[in-house]
Amino acid sequence: MENKNSKFKPFTFRINLSNKTIPDSDSHIIRKLSSMKNQYFDDSCYEEMIKKEDTILYEVYEKLVPEEEGELIQGLTIVHPGKVGKEYFMTKGHFHSILNTAELYFCFSGHGYIVMETPEGYCQTEELLPDTAVYVPGRWAHRSVNVGSTDLVMLFVYPANAGHNYSTIETRGFRKLIIEDKGNPKIINNPKWK
Amino acid sequence: MENKNSKFKPFTFRINLSNKTIPDSDSHIIRKLSSMKNQYFDDSCYEEMIKKEDTILYEVYEKLVPEEEGELIQGLTIVHPGKVGKEYFMTKGHFHSILNTAELYFCFSGHGYIVMETPEGYCQTEELLPDTAVYVPGRWAHRSVNVGSTDLVMLFVYPANAGHNYSTIETRGFRKLIIEDKGNPKIINNPKWK
Repeated sequence: MENKNSKFKPFTFRINLSNKTIPDSDSHIIRKLSSMKNQYFDDSCYEEMIKKEDTILYEVYEKLVPEEEGELIQGLTIVHPGKVGKEYFMTKGHFHSILNTAELYFCFSGHGYIVMETPEGYCQTEELLPDTAVYVPGRWAHRSVNVGSTDLVMLFVYPANAGHNYSTIETRGFRKLIIEDKGNPKIINNPKWK
Repeated sequence: MENKNSKFKPFTFRINLSNKTIPDSDSHIIRKLSSMKNQYFDDSCYEEMIKKEDTILYEVYEKLVPEEEGELIQGLTIVHPGKVGKEYFMTKGHFHSILNTAELYFCFSGHGYIVMETPEGYCQTEELLPDTAVYVPGRWAHRSVNVGSTDLVMLFVYPANAGHNYSTIETRGFRKLIIEDKGNPKIINNPKWK
């Protein structure tokens, strides 16, 4: 019997939480410092760091499914610990191309924040600790920030038709940043936001 | 500024994996033996058991969001260990009302299976072990079965507009069952399937 189901079947995958991988992932994205030009607020510090080493900031393992409405894409994000100047390592951050699509993050280990904002300028940050989840409703751009000293390890799930709009954030930045202040994370207004 | 975002904001929730709850869930469903009449294949055994005690089979904690396309509903399912005759404790099982909507299960602890089938009669079962996930694509009815001796504890995520169609399974059953055979789980054809 030839139908959609014979091509797209249920599947199982294991998350290896010891070495923080999805061993049989369909994609493994490695984002280095060089892919985040102009995204950190301290440009001179960024330039100095990158001269020494193009450090890995975060990694994403994904299980792919047809990018159709009703399906779900899922995977593992690992944001490594570190800072560019005072600003913690973070993901690029994005809106979904279909704006009204949500995303769930579940934190296995580490300490982080999800920084979020809407096109209208509402801002919100939510803290991630082990065994907590952050729900990002449709319309909210989102970025993960590692404020701890170990890897921030998260399961993510989002609608398979969502798509990614990185350019708005690459151009404008987020309205809020998280920096280290006296050893603690502090949320500040982004001086470079435009 | 009055818009959708002022009513529906990002949120955080913790999953307590020690006592297997979502402490600030919006709903807590408790399913007992009495809600599963005619669902187990050994009716006489079912009747004997329920005379003694209306045992709790499984529990579901949910975080609710607007049931809109693009949003995601998530929660925790705990299937307790046990059997009705030779047949392991399991969830009711359902199609989604919007058939083309998927669901992700991530297993924190325990040992189980997701039993799945399509309206056309394709059948598949996938095993759940700690730190594994099962992806149920759109169109596949699904049921969780605990084949272990401890609670089967799972995170689930599905599109918020999916809805539930329990009646097809309540009337017909699944084509496949999982029973204990010489101490091990065995997948058999459902003798009561119609």
